[in-house]
Amino acid sequence: MMVNHLTPTYYAVIFSTILTEDISGYVEMSKKMELLAKQQKGYLGLESARNEIGITVSYWQTLEDIVAWKNNIEHTEARGLGREKWYKKYQLRICKVEREYGFEKNLEV
Amino acid sequence: MMVNHLTPTYYAVIFSTILTEDISGYVEMSKKMELLAKQQKGYLGLESARNEIGITVSYWQTLEDIVAWKNNIEHTEARGLGREKWYKKYQLRICKVEREYGFEKNLEV
Repeated sequence: MMVNHLTPTYYAVIFSTILTEDISGYVEMSKKMELLAKQQKGYLGLESARNEIGITVSYWQTLEDIVAWKNNIEHTEARGLGREKWYKKYQLRICKVEREYGFEKNLEV
Repeated sequence: MMVNHLTPTYYAVIFSTILTEDISGYVEMSKKMELLAKQQKGYLGLESARNEIGITVSYWQTLEDIVAWKNNIEHTEARGLGREKWYKKYQLRICKVEREYGFEKNLEV
């Protein structure tokens, strides 16, 4: 799902990953974490795509919301499993969204 | 390709897209634009993944570098073609990267 127009300023977490060969349980955990993220304060949306690498971008109202989600116990456990099993490599970037432009065929937002 | 550790502050352009059914010429143009981006001042790297949606994140040293790349003539023409032909919908977000964390199996960066 694409995340439609949001009004800056807000925050984005760009999470780029390369998986190991053992991805048993990974898809289930990703879905679980996506559902859990949606219930958190300040959650604005999530976009995800994968082929050679995976990119997941989640959007949040404030930096404090991102820290609270990072400290969520189930999420912390999932990240531990991720480092142990699923992720060969990742890079996580926390960004302030400053400007935004949208386009939709026959409708410019 | 994943973009390895960069030192904040720098900028990210998150470009999320949904394609139309007519993508003839799209892959070639994407490759051409990626090569052209690499030659621009302030270019730091690019990550891209696609399945249901596409997410391309490019990284730049300054906001001015992003504006200069936006105004590049070949890039402007390619964007015009993109809106006319390939993109059903897109959202483009310009962000300041404030914090960054990396992990590599048996090596935490």
